Amino acid sequence: MFLLNGESRHCVDVSDRGFQYGDGLFETIAVCNGRPLFLQRHLDRLLKGCRRLHIPPPDLSLLESEARQLSAGADVAVLKLILTRGSGGRGYRQPEQIVPTRLFSLHPSPNYPDCYQTDGIVARFCEWRLAINPGFAGIKHMNRLEQVMARAEWQHDTVQEGLMFDSDDRIVEGTMSNLFFVKDGILHTPLLVNCGIAGILRQIVIEFAVRNGLALSEGHFSKQNVLEADEVFVTNSVIGIWPVKQLEKQCFCVGRVTRAIQQWYAGAHKLEANL
Amino acid sequence: MFLLNGESRHCVDVSDRGFQYGDGLFETIAVCNGRPLFLQRHLDRLLKGCRRLHIPPPDLSLLESEARQLSAGADVAVLKLILTRGSGGRGYRQPEQIVPTRLFSLHPSPNYPDCYQTDGIVARFCEWRLAINPGFAGIKHMNRLEQVMARAEWQHDTVQEGLMFDSDDRIVEGTMSNLFFVKDGILHTPLLVNCGIAGILRQIVIEFAVRNGLALSEGHFSKQNVLEADEVFVTNSVIGIWPVKQLEKQCFCVGRVTRAIQQWYAGAHKLEANL
Repeated sequence: MFLLNGESRHCVDVSDRGFQYGDGLFETIAVCNGRPLFLQRHLDRLLKGCRRLHIPPPDLSLLESEARQLSAGADVAVLKLILTRGSGGRGYRQPEQIVPTRLFSLHPSPNYPDCYQTDGIVARFCEWRLAINPGFAGIKHMNRLEQVMARAEWQHDTVQEGLMFDSDDRIVEGTMSNLFFVKDGILHTPLLVNCGIAGILRQIVIEFAVRNGLALSEGHFSKQNVLEADEVFVTNSVIGIWPVKQLEKQCFCVGRVTRAIQQWYAGAHKLEANL
Repeated sequence: MFLLNGESRHCVDVSDRGFQYGDGLFETIAVCNGRPLFLQRHLDRLLKGCRRLHIPPPDLSLLESEARQLSAGADVAVLKLILTRGSGGRGYRQPEQIVPTRLFSLHPSPNYPDCYQTDGIVARFCEWRLAINPGFAGIKHMNRLEQVMARAEWQHDTVQEGLMFDSDDRIVEGTMSNLFFVKDGILHTPLLVNCGIAGILRQIVIEFAVRNGLALSEGHFSKQNVLEADEVFVTNSVIGIWPVKQLEKQCFCVGRVTRAIQQWYAGAHKLEANL
């Protein structure tokens, strides 16, 4: 199902700057029990992205109503929202009047096996680097070739996620997830000031840690820091929280902190989905 | 005029990875006297980009024939070719069978005043940086938010081009052009190993220099290097060669080397256009 500027269409004009330059933003929203989960947080991040890219802020109540309309019939699904700078302008130069394009699309849930949540996943390190560009750090813009190239580094389904470094060899995130690890009882997550996407679930986990007095360190970390961790997990709005049971040749237990966060999140998820 | 996979359409499916992730390549080709100029060079660069991004190489004879077909009626125009990884795959993961999307679009010539070529242009330095990612350096991929943001730094038509630095403060190129400068008789141009687009006209100018015994230095240069130059010019397939007469507060003469290269290029252009 698609809603392009409010119409049931799934074709976009090739002059759209989203297609021409990746000039836009997106959100990937989990849908459960007919509801787009944590919608307000997704729209907040979209707004932040608009401010950063100087895209006029969209009508949030319209986006909210369209998101709810499309999700209403779905038991479990994924709702993707794309907002581009629209058509026009000459070359890279923006048009004087920007009329953003908004697109909602509803997709079947990827249906990952339950064991990814319960037993954990196998992850690897990617060769492909995330370039450092503080101006884009945190926002979910449509220039995603780095993730495409990193995700192409492995084909086997025996590996579920690849972790990426920036060009200074600091670990940043997974190709489609944010990264957390626990060492000596302290929860660590990479600081996303140079690159990376500040995930919605990442923010929720951070807030949970702060509220529950869990020591949190947001900083710059190396490959070695992660390999020496006691627990490792990745997060994303659609997959939830996946413990990492193996990273390259290093094995990890699904530890106490990961389980506590998973359990707490299961409750928050249920509440959000009105189950 | 548009040709999308050989059909006269100007709408692309929103599931196309070009729209979703900027997962593709493009070429911007000058058309003169009904001919797409330096077409072979453009297709060569496209192929290089395909190899880098692991996009299956397109049928070059088909691209060539479509390019010629679309250009045939045009006196002066701009032909844009986009080649994406097509639709499919789950998230960033590529589909097993990649069926690239090809799009040709013919646009009116931007019609810049002749004085840009004869008297030169005014340029500025951009604040927005080009991120360092050697994997993408040189190719003309569709992730162009950096150029969009840099081009948005000025609105006035009194400035024609903005020069961009990488995150290590080395000068790289213009938002839509490549950069050359002359100092003590030596032609300089930034080395594009970390970022930047290796323009077709840039390559032509380099070959001209080599063939004519003009000393050429391709390397890493600073803002100061450019400001202290004797001559500065920018190149791109559509604009040709524009001398820079003013960069920020620094003025330049349109010098002997720039004029020689312009004159020589005018001849090559005429030949290519069969005029």
